[in-house]
Amino acid sequence: MADKFVSIRNLKFLLHEVFDVASLTKYDYYGDYDRKMLDMVLQAAGELAQGLLWPNFQEMDRNPPELLGDTVKVHPSVREVLRTFGEGGWIAMTVPEELDGQQLPQIMADVCQFIFCAANYSAAVYPGLCDGAARLIENFGSRDLYHTYVPNMRSGRWQGTMALTEPEAGSSLADIVTTAEPAEEGYYRILGQKIFISGGDHDGAENVVHLMLAKIKGAPPGVKGISLFVVPKKRISETGELVSNDVVTSGIFHKLGYRGCPIAQLSIGDKNDCRGYLVGEPHKGLQYMFQMMNESRIGVGIGATAMATAAYYASLEYAGIRKQGRRVTEKDPSLPPVAIIEHADVKRMLLFQRSVVEGSLSLLLQCSKYVDMKKVEIDEEKEKYGLLLDILTPVAKSYPSETGILSISRGLQCLGGSGYCDDYPLEQYYRDARIHPIHEGTTGIQGLDLLGRKVVMKGGKAFQLYGQEVRNTISSAAGEERLRSHAESLEKALDQLEKVTAHLKGVAAKGELDLFLADATLYLDVFGIVTIAWQWLKQGLAVVKGLEGATLDKERNFYQGKLYALRFFFAYELPKMEGIVRRLMNGDGLTVEMAEAFFAD
Amino acid sequence: MADKFVSIRNLKFLLHEVFDVASLTKYDYYGDYDRKMLDMVLQAAGELAQGLLWPNFQEMDRNPPELLGDTVKVHPSVREVLRTFGEGGWIAMTVPEELDGQQLPQIMADVCQFIFCAANYSAAVYPGLCDGAARLIENFGSRDLYHTYVPNMRSGRWQGTMALTEPEAGSSLADIVTTAEPAEEGYYRILGQKIFISGGDHDGAENVVHLMLAKIKGAPPGVKGISLFVVPKKRISETGELVSNDVVTSGIFHKLGYRGCPIAQLSIGDKNDCRGYLVGEPHKGLQYMFQMMNESRIGVGIGATAMATAAYYASLEYAGIRKQGRRVTEKDPSLPPVAIIEHADVKRMLLFQRSVVEGSLSLLLQCSKYVDMKKVEIDEEKEKYGLLLDILTPVAKSYPSETGILSISRGLQCLGGSGYCDDYPLEQYYRDARIHPIHEGTTGIQGLDLLGRKVVMKGGKAFQLYGQEVRNTISSAAGEERLRSHAESLEKALDQLEKVTAHLKGVAAKGELDLFLADATLYLDVFGIVTIAWQWLKQGLAVVKGLEGATLDKERNFYQGKLYALRFFFAYELPKMEGIVRRLMNGDGLTVEMAEAFFAD
Repeated sequence: MADKFVSIRNLKFLLHEVFDVASLTKYDYYGDYDRKMLDMVLQAAGELAQGLLWPNFQEMDRNPPELLGDTVKVHPSVREVLRTFGEGGWIAMTVPEELDGQQLPQIMADVCQFIFCAANYSAAVYPGLCDGAARLIENFGSRDLYHTYVPNMRSGRWQGTMALTEPEAGSSLADIVTTAEPAEEGYYRILGQKIFISGGDHDGAENVVHLMLAKIKGAPPGVKGISLFVVPKKRISETGELVSNDVVTSGIFHKLGYRGCPIAQLSIGDKNDCRGYLVGEPHKGLQYMFQMMNESRIGVGIGATAMATAAYYASLEYAGIRKQGRRVTEKDPSLPPVAIIEHADVKRMLLFQRSVVEGSLSLLLQCSKYVDMKKVEIDEEKEKYGLLLDILTPVAKSYPSETGILSISRGLQCLGGSGYCDDYPLEQYYRDARIHPIHEGTTGIQGLDLLGRKVVMKGGKAFQLYGQEVRNTISSAAGEERLRSHAESLEKALDQLEKVTAHLKGVAAKGELDLFLADATLYLDVFGIVTIAWQWLKQGLAVVKGLEGATLDKERNFYQGKLYALRFFFAYELPKMEGIVRRLMNGDGLTVEMAEAFFAD
Repeated sequence: MADKFVSIRNLKFLLHEVFDVASLTKYDYYGDYDRKMLDMVLQAAGELAQGLLWPNFQEMDRNPPELLGDTVKVHPSVREVLRTFGEGGWIAMTVPEELDGQQLPQIMADVCQFIFCAANYSAAVYPGLCDGAARLIENFGSRDLYHTYVPNMRSGRWQGTMALTEPEAGSSLADIVTTAEPAEEGYYRILGQKIFISGGDHDGAENVVHLMLAKIKGAPPGVKGISLFVVPKKRISETGELVSNDVVTSGIFHKLGYRGCPIAQLSIGDKNDCRGYLVGEPHKGLQYMFQMMNESRIGVGIGATAMATAAYYASLEYAGIRKQGRRVTEKDPSLPPVAIIEHADVKRMLLFQRSVVEGSLSLLLQCSKYVDMKKVEIDEEKEKYGLLLDILTPVAKSYPSETGILSISRGLQCLGGSGYCDDYPLEQYYRDARIHPIHEGTTGIQGLDLLGRKVVMKGGKAFQLYGQEVRNTISSAAGEERLRSHAESLEKALDQLEKVTAHLKGVAAKGELDLFLADATLYLDVFGIVTIAWQWLKQGLAVVKGLEGATLDKERNFYQGKLYALRFFFAYELPKMEGIVRRLMNGDGLTVEMAEAFFAD
């Protein structure tokens, strides 16, 4: 096992030097905190990850959940994780103090979640799901629902889930067929099947609380007929005991990776005795769920980046130790071999990883910062941050997911044959990470969301605001000698993105919706590349400042490394958009026209 | 499980319509065959794959080899595979008749190997290794060695291996430390450790014959001191019995995929009783081994393409059956959902796979054809085909390996959550395929081989010949209306490649070897993209001809599908070279300069 899974130095760089988290404490809502306290939170999260999550990273993979009878048995540490997280307030980091939470900025919660995911993604999912599900009830449920469920979820005693997917309704939630029939007693009788439910059942919690989508009988078709219910595995009887609520785990899926967490198939109401409790108003379920879904999408980006980060450090460690071959300029075979980190091609693979993971993390914390600013600002500013968050969410979900896979693959490659074997953790990261382009909306769905919805909404206002944000960074960087050429490159790239966007909107304006959206995934790719370049330039501004004040070698090396990673991204990654832009500007409907029959042979 | 793993129609298209395999039968050496007989071979290979290999594809993965005591226990079908392949002459397809072989063209052997690998890569490796190892003895060993070992290997009773890698010598074979000490009796005493030996020990064969690299005591340092030995697991005693030869399996590796075949760690000569038999002359071992290695590299390309092909058909089948969502132009949620193959983004993922796998297969058969032409031609023509083969080998190894992974990943993505679960074969392909950029020389090594050796050798003659071959195809295609624009695109791409090559050679001429080779992997990427575009254009010529004569819908659809895949490659894949070319033309030594200290934080 490698020794390091995150860099606390890099997290502090991003929190303080790039995003100035302490500036949030000037707002009343975060006024109880100061920089020192925030650093203590960071340190505590690091210790928790190191002590409780990291030691079980491989073991949870090798002892995956089993369905024994009607119970899913998970690794014994799951129970400890949930309780420890609950007791430590880690499942209520951003909850207001008045609801017994820590009232921390989102950016702190996200940094902590990043640390937890880097240490052990599967383990971090359990408390993460509790948090998201509890927040849905807090925001939209009755006081009664709140008191019954939320404290139990936030203490880690009851597991929360998101129960959306059904056998015939994955990407298309409009087609769910789980039904809810009103009963006179104030609850609904739920009947249906759910699949792929993360944490959907396990023996590490006393109960499981599903935040479940279902259609009330007689509801309109499609997404406008979806309602949200709390459907516990065990409900509270009239005498106050936990009794079965007719939610049966009919199977668990055997997965490529992410094996520490069970993904369950649920049969609901087979005995016509499953009670569901409506959250908020009827038919508004998808709208509510999307609040949690958007957070979850950012959460997927965090998880993907965290895994790729841990993989990066594992490959970096190996590259510094493993000796093999000589420099290409050295022909004398009697000289001792060098560490492979001295080979340019290995450095290229390491820099690729670093530029992807540190660029992705910067984007994710940018989103967190927008969440915080949206919370504390008002009126136009509030709207601005909301729109920026809206447009960046599909990018923050997809770029880390898609490039995280490539990054881990390069990490594995650094180890050669050892990377393919389970003596090293790379093969597990490689398996684990493949889930991210799939769950919480596939990459294809994110592309449609970005181009078909976010870019065009409110007359393109979010896209305009995005352009302004990027240009602000460009303006600042143009004044720095070390960054000027990169600022120019980013300006050209943004121009290209705007040109492509205008071109595609022109296609849409002609009513050619098929053609407009055919290459939405490629548009998402370009958007991602430009966005990460922007985040690197933003980091570059902090680096220039940091270098001025750095006196220790260690500090200078850190900033120099950042500069190389920045240069790498601009030299090797940014140019990749050129070929994609060419395609987007020349859409010929090839994938729209291609007939199914032409695939036959 | 999916039903289809290869398209016999596509294989016949490539064999007959693109590469005109029957033309080889005009040469004396292949004169005993005609088209009908070759088609029968193809059919027999298909039946063998379907009946013997495919049924165990998943089972071999789920029941991987175990080291029990001193024996590696493998799936029981391994023994049957080896015997059936041996008895059917499948381990001697290209061996001359005078040595009891089938004397088939290499292109036929490679097509058959492709079918076997698509059905079950792990299973196909066992006989494939026997073939390669036997050929080394045939070509370089004594008659005595030949008679003792080769018939047993070609009959599938004894397993052959390539035993190169050691704990401290993977990519750098110069550093092997296994020693060979001459004994008076005519053999050598071998002492050392080998790791990652595919098929290195198992109970499906009566003996294992290692073609092993070692250094004779007193040999010169580096690669010039490496000799090749036959080192059997069991040697033949004076009384003619098989007795232990002091080769002990000290471990097997637990791998991400490719689990049907054991990868062993061997301790050789612990009791000072391991006998090795020199093949050919001392110190020429690496030279001999590279004959097998080059074939093996093409073999890796075949295996990678085969897996990605099977994955493509599995995802295609799913996409045609799975119903989800509606067309983007259809807003009525009460209409029934469509098969996902109707979504442009899914078609894009399918076309990506098809363009990659059918393009790669074409390149591999192009190489096979060169092998055959080299064998039957003489003088300058013979040299020409040899050089073309030399320069294309690293590309034929790497492009299918690297893009095969991406292709399978897209295939998995088509299945959404189901792709991540083992109810479908995609997750296994995804694991299995990750070995290919690693074994038989990593992608980094291939890049160095291509740019540092093949492109510059003999004054750049191989590269010139390559350019001529591509231009020949361009000239033919320029006369076809349907292909003209693609011919123009390829001409521009080839110009770019030549420009980059000249630029890099200029860097080398200045003596900046570090800088010259720093981005050799990127150069390999560009070379691969141009080469696959060439192969698609070549297929295009056959398609145009085929469409003229096609009368059945089925046939027209096949050719139309080919045209779409060709267009896809030119529209989506070829432009990817642009960003890479930009980087290669602007090498600034970033990865050469980057100091190890800058990675610290």
